[in-house]
Amino acid sequence: MKVKLGYKTDQEYFAINDSDNRIEIDMLPREDKKAMSPTELLLSGVIACAAVDIVSMIKKKRKSLIEFSGEASGERRDEQPRKFTSMHIHYRIISPDLTQIDAEKIVHLAVEKYCSVASTINESTTLTHSVEVVPN
Amino acid sequence: MKVKLGYKTDQEYFAINDSDNRIEIDMLPREDKKAMSPTELLLSGVIACAAVDIVSMIKKKRKSLIEFSGEASGERRDEQPRKFTSMHIHYRIISPDLTQIDAEKIVHLAVEKYCSVASTINESTTLTHSVEVVPN
Repeated sequence: MKVKLGYKTDQEYFAINDSDNRIEIDMLPREDKKAMSPTELLLSGVIACAAVDIVSMIKKKRKSLIEFSGEASGERRDEQPRKFTSMHIHYRIISPDLTQIDAEKIVHLAVEKYCSVASTINESTTLTHSVEVVPN
Repeated sequence: MKVKLGYKTDQEYFAINDSDNRIEIDMLPREDKKAMSPTELLLSGVIACAAVDIVSMIKKKRKSLIEFSGEASGERRDEQPRKFTSMHIHYRIISPDLTQIDAEKIVHLAVEKYCSVASTINESTTLTHSVEVVPN
C-alpha cells in the first residue's frame, strides 16, 4: 500500500493512492481551511475503519439499518509532538430491531478486534467508544 | 477537535471536520475505488504532518525549495486486526542549496520530534524515513 504526497503551498498538500484517488490536506487556520488537517485524517481513518465492520456485522445479524452516523473527537497534549492523549468515537444507529447490548458488542469488536487503524494507535493513547441505538 | 462520519453505502462513507471540509472514504476493491480507504488516510496523515514541518524548517534555514514531494508506504500483518507492522516515508526535495545532511536532520526532526500523527502511532509499528535531495 502506497500513498503519494504533493506540495501546493507551505500549508497545503495533496495525497494520491494507488488507484489515483486524491485528497486535499491543509494546515491553514480554521477560518481559512479548505481541507482536513493530518490529525483530522487520523480521526477520520479510525472512525471509518471501525464503521465498515460495524455495518457489516449488523447486516450479518440480519438486523435492519435505517441510519448510521458517527463522531470522533480527540485530545492532544500541548507540548511537541502534539500526540493524541485520548480519542473517543461515538456511533449513532437507527434500527428498529438491533438491541443496545448487541450494538455495544458489535462496536467493541469492530474497534478492538478488527480496526486496522485503531490497532496501529499507540497504547498510551486512550481510545474509548460508545454507541446509541435509536429505534426509528 | 472533532470529525463527523456519514454513511453512503456499506463500503462508502464521508467525514466532515469542524470547518465543514469533507472527504470521501471507501473500502471498495481497487478497480472500483473512488476514494481513499481508512488505512490510506492514516498513511496520508503521517506523511503530510511531517511535510509541513519539513517545509517550514527548510524556509527557516533560508534554503530555496524548488519542488517537494513524498511517498508513504506501509506493510500490514495478515491477521486481524490488520495493523501496520511497518511504515516508510520518503521525501524528494529539489533545492540547489540544501545539503543532503541538513535535509536528513530536518526530516528526522520533523518525523521524530514534531509530527503529531507519527507520535500517535504504536511503538510496535516500525516507522522509517528517508530523503533525497536533488540540486535541480
